[in-house]
Amino acid sequence: MRAALENALREAVRTGRLPPAARLPSSRALSEDLQIARNTVAEAYAQLVGEGWLVAKQGSGTHVAGQVPATRQVASPAAAEVTRFRYDLRAGSPDLSSFPRSEWLSAARRALVGAPAEAFGYTDPRGRPELRAALAGYLARARGVRAAPERIVICSGFTQSFGLLCQVLRARGATSLTTEAYGLSSNHDTVTAAGMGVQTLRVDERGALVEELTYTDAALLTPAHQFPLGQALAAARRTQVIQWAVATAGLVIEDDYDGEFRYDRQPVGALQSLAPEHVVYAGTASKTLAPGLRLGWLVLPAHLIDDVAAAKAAADRHTSVLDQLTLAELISCGGYDRHVRRRRLAYRRRRDRFVAELHRHAPQLRVLGIAAGLHALLQLPQGHTENEVVARAARRGLAIEGLNAYRHTDQPHQPALVIGYASPPDHAFTGALARLVAVLDDPPRPG
Amino acid sequence: MRAALENALREAVRTGRLPPAARLPSSRALSEDLQIARNTVAEAYAQLVGEGWLVAKQGSGTHVAGQVPATRQVASPAAAEVTRFRYDLRAGSPDLSSFPRSEWLSAARRALVGAPAEAFGYTDPRGRPELRAALAGYLARARGVRAAPERIVICSGFTQSFGLLCQVLRARGATSLTTEAYGLSSNHDTVTAAGMGVQTLRVDERGALVEELTYTDAALLTPAHQFPLGQALAAARRTQVIQWAVATAGLVIEDDYDGEFRYDRQPVGALQSLAPEHVVYAGTASKTLAPGLRLGWLVLPAHLIDDVAAAKAAADRHTSVLDQLTLAELISCGGYDRHVRRRRLAYRRRRDRFVAELHRHAPQLRVLGIAAGLHALLQLPQGHTENEVVARAARRGLAIEGLNAYRHTDQPHQPALVIGYASPPDHAFTGALARLVAVLDDPPRPG
Repeated sequence: MRAALENALREAVRTGRLPPAARLPSSRALSEDLQIARNTVAEAYAQLVGEGWLVAKQGSGTHVAGQVPATRQVASPAAAEVTRFRYDLRAGSPDLSSFPRSEWLSAARRALVGAPAEAFGYTDPRGRPELRAALAGYLARARGVRAAPERIVICSGFTQSFGLLCQVLRARGATSLTTEAYGLSSNHDTVTAAGMGVQTLRVDERGALVEELTYTDAALLTPAHQFPLGQALAAARRTQVIQWAVATAGLVIEDDYDGEFRYDRQPVGALQSLAPEHVVYAGTASKTLAPGLRLGWLVLPAHLIDDVAAAKAAADRHTSVLDQLTLAELISCGGYDRHVRRRRLAYRRRRDRFVAELHRHAPQLRVLGIAAGLHALLQLPQGHTENEVVARAARRGLAIEGLNAYRHTDQPHQPALVIGYASPPDHAFTGALARLVAVLDDPPRPG
Repeated sequence: MRAALENALREAVRTGRLPPAARLPSSRALSEDLQIARNTVAEAYAQLVGEGWLVAKQGSGTHVAGQVPATRQVASPAAAEVTRFRYDLRAGSPDLSSFPRSEWLSAARRALVGAPAEAFGYTDPRGRPELRAALAGYLARARGVRAAPERIVICSGFTQSFGLLCQVLRARGATSLTTEAYGLSSNHDTVTAAGMGVQTLRVDERGALVEELTYTDAALLTPAHQFPLGQALAAARRTQVIQWAVATAGLVIEDDYDGEFRYDRQPVGALQSLAPEHVVYAGTASKTLAPGLRLGWLVLPAHLIDDVAAAKAAADRHTSVLDQLTLAELISCGGYDRHVRRRRLAYRRRRDRFVAELHRHAPQLRVLGIAAGLHALLQLPQGHTENEVVARAARRGLAIEGLNAYRHTDQPHQPALVIGYASPPDHAFTGALARLVAVLDDPPRPG
């Protein structure tokens, strides 16, 4: 009790709720208010006087000290990560400065003006019908997805989409999920948090070795553009994985995180169209618009719709309607397609410059993966280690990541960097490339 | 395999992807494409011809039938609920037509124009600093909460706030949580889904009987305005529950869902201010603005911040930034306070009219609860049952709910309705009241 009172008083002083020199209630008054012993209050006051938070003056009671002790910093996951880099070539983000603010605002205005009042209330856990209808058309057109609106569940980004799926699969008895041997480690955390085991599939130049899929309930794949290695899943393997799903009643989860961005040809359509009852299609606005929107979507086999919708309702009832209505309007008016086309051109040029620049300065280095997406894999020459290059880049103010950050297998690989050429704003792209080339020009240090 | 092919074809016809009269590939071509036996394809085709989906014509192959069988309706939790009522007096929603669309849009414009590019990226799982700073000031001013920005975690509504808290408590070893005997049943589902047991506290005219709290890890309370019974927690009980928390290291979760709306006096400040290290304050924009926004916030004891932030990051990384930035701007410019004041006046008038109207037409009926919030409890006279009145109202196009919908105890209560007088739009309020009075005027039918 006394400790609690002390903590509460420290906090009040620390946050300024009790400002310097403020007078505290007498120990008798406070003890009556809180219905605790007067001695307890007196002892707490004495302790805080000893610590320097309070000052006791004979005849005028207890006051907050003029100078309070150094405040304890409340730690947070995010605060720990804040390191300032001048340049950032880490993968996973589009150019945030390219967010189409005025188009978004115009669409938001039209959406808000036109929305029925009920749109502001609790709505279908699958999301607003306006957005599910717009997405069904868009996904069919742009990605070949077989997407009826009633099969779509809008989620708060892929993170939530995948988390809800894992919950549902586990509740139905699934015990294991297979991912590609390279990918986001947060996906592994999601699977294990749901109580399932994780296996991994090797990846070669034709994508994941799906012929190695055996006893597993579901497979999370990035067929259009393996993340982060960069291959497309070969046609024969697309067929193979569908055969596996049909034969074993396994579920394929197709993470189509950047399927809109292919530069050398028309993008390969979604795997989902081959077998919509065996594949969950997972899409997102995080790469086309911005991760901060937290908008993602699942296109589900009929047998999963109700369970995923129920899991979504339990998690947060539904995703924010205003963003949903705005995106629906942006898609319907053609603004979304225009934005994607503009970004495709911009990122394609960046990739071309990245490849050309490297070829000029370091012709011995290989850029791996198809011409697609927002990142590429850069193989390092013999003698370099990823950690050493990443550390060297950090000292030059450039944030990059090694492939090891995405590895989920014991098999080692030739050292490589995952370069997110889409991440910097336009004005910083040239500088970021120059910094990267300079880092690669340095002679390797012995590990 | 054959069943899968059949399902896929049915689906393609059903959704119109294969339109009426479309010609299907030959069984040989399809068997090669899918690398399955030709017989399997032929059998699937034959089955679907038998079911009426396809038509086989000698010499011209297999086609989609002109008339397809009646489509199976994909069920969904929401679809099942859609019953059209002319009037709605159920509790839980503000007047959705009062959402301040133009103020919100203006704030969104200023927020979007002024936001740094990094705001569109992955951000602190606790939420944007702009909103946490604005809320810290607002909650201190409006609700007496001791809220430093670093203690706030923005969530997607109270549903997610409470879900994350339950997860964190369970992971730390908590096994039981206590709620009030009347409240939302979804809260109970959340507790049990997290793997904890639920106890309940009786509620009398001075609020929850917190002196009955014993061996439980946490208590979820609605101190400012018990939901749905309508009492405020008495001053002595406020002290008592804090003493319980301090003495047993228990956690109080203060669900302040409508604390801004008090009509007869200044609202009682948040319980949290008495012991910020023992109380989690949970607030929401669902009643002040709109549930569709899915914006809620937790003000946390220091020892819970990191775990809740980590749970939030795992769930969906963070809440949509655009809504956060807009609400921050709306609070900072004073628009939020103005809107709350306007709504307080409007809802107060509605409550007064509701009470007056009932008094005139049915003086024998008692309206219970303090003059606050968006709902009131209406005791039914002897001889009525809740179900019978609710059904009678439904037949007259009026949606209402009985108190039983919120009961989590075996103890029966005198029949009562929970009336959400804030729910209808202004133009429908008079009609809704008239309909309610008419329903109550009907003689009771024997159950």
